[in-house]
Amino acid sequence: MECGKYDYRVQPGDVDLTQKASIITLGNHILHAAGEDADRLGFGLRWMQSNNTTWVLSRMAIEMDRYPDEYEHYQIETWVSDINRLMTTRNFILHDRAGNAIGKGCTHWSMIDFKTRLPLDLRTLEHYMAAVIATDPPIDRPAKIAKVNGTAAETHRIRYSDIDFNQHTNSMKYVQWMVDMLPLEKLTSQRLRRLDINFLHETRYGQQVVIAMENSEEADKFEIRPEGSDQAACKAALFWI
Amino acid sequence: MECGKYDYRVQPGDVDLTQKASIITLGNHILHAAGEDADRLGFGLRWMQSNNTTWVLSRMAIEMDRYPDEYEHYQIETWVSDINRLMTTRNFILHDRAGNAIGKGCTHWSMIDFKTRLPLDLRTLEHYMAAVIATDPPIDRPAKIAKVNGTAAETHRIRYSDIDFNQHTNSMKYVQWMVDMLPLEKLTSQRLRRLDINFLHETRYGQQVVIAMENSEEADKFEIRPEGSDQAACKAALFWI
Repeated sequence: MECGKYDYRVQPGDVDLTQKASIITLGNHILHAAGEDADRLGFGLRWMQSNNTTWVLSRMAIEMDRYPDEYEHYQIETWVSDINRLMTTRNFILHDRAGNAIGKGCTHWSMIDFKTRLPLDLRTLEHYMAAVIATDPPIDRPAKIAKVNGTAAETHRIRYSDIDFNQHTNSMKYVQWMVDMLPLEKLTSQRLRRLDINFLHETRYGQQVVIAMENSEEADKFEIRPEGSDQAACKAALFWI
Repeated sequence: MECGKYDYRVQPGDVDLTQKASIITLGNHILHAAGEDADRLGFGLRWMQSNNTTWVLSRMAIEMDRYPDEYEHYQIETWVSDINRLMTTRNFILHDRAGNAIGKGCTHWSMIDFKTRLPLDLRTLEHYMAAVIATDPPIDRPAKIAKVNGTAAETHRIRYSDIDFNQHTNSMKYVQWMVDMLPLEKLTSQRLRRLDINFLHETRYGQQVVIAMENSEEADKFEIRPEGSDQAACKAALFWI
């Protein structure tokens, strides 16, 4: 089995004020490559719909050495490195046109039956097992983020532009809300080196969520939870250079 | 002189919960085609930077007959139909792969000196004058929107993800904030047929803006203004089927 390779180009709407691809764009492209490759292996949207199952992204880590420029072409290489009962690991390397690795990613996924909401035993998916490539993740696996108390907080009502066709919040919207809380000075003078994110519960259209932030020398940590709840929907740690 | 023709594809991040391209995506692609074509004619970003000038979008109208699907390819044809002292008209037709016109647009632009902030006399730009194609706008020109009082209002702080490299709000973000105020039921059961939008003043990073909405049988009207100001930054009318 070969790695999947998918081509992307940074469009004008994909850049931030530094005129380079934002982490939100890169995360969306990584998730897109994951979807395309699952489809190539026979476990994409079509298979899931006919089997009443759905992939659930539980953790994601991205490390970037260089953010691609506006209009730059790059390629995402992706492969599944391991599968156990409840979780599978999908990895990513972003290559520029000269062939240099400019970024890397590692994600953990489970698959659930969307009627019972129970997880499937991934080892029963023979074709999927056959797709494993015995190459370890290119970066440390996404870390489990501890409880974030938050020294600052904002609220956000989940809107039309935040949701997918299931009316759930798009994964990278959480990252957008987090990054939007940081001072512009940091966002322009420093570079996000690594992002660890844990997806714990879905949020839905119309819900009001609190985005709590805790800043330290080492990292900016975030927790997003429905207002009035102490159950996090999403937690993340951002490390800068 | 021939029309410019630019190819687009609806990426997964470009669709809304109906799984068709959102008006925000289409507006961004239209503005992108405008930028590419200005560049083709010699009046793009590079020319502007070396001449200390900038294009200013003052009005935009879009009419859509059909919203393209996820992954659909389509082409935007664009041309300049007229130029007078202070304003030029750029038009757009969106074609699907079968060659059908699925949408149309008409925009008004001026050009300002970004030191003096004064408008240039566009008739002095000989090459630009030579680019005019004597084909009228394909839809009614963008209307002037009257004062919107607003029966509902929301506030929004302008964030990192809202701004361009000049730290000004991206034009289509105004449309996103407007559409986000509408009930999901309307957004899924009706189709936006026509959008008229007037861009009156720039807003900047960190500013707090009020989005006021006035709904009637005929249209949803919006006005966005900095909090505490009665000068609109942007006004729009949205017509539905």
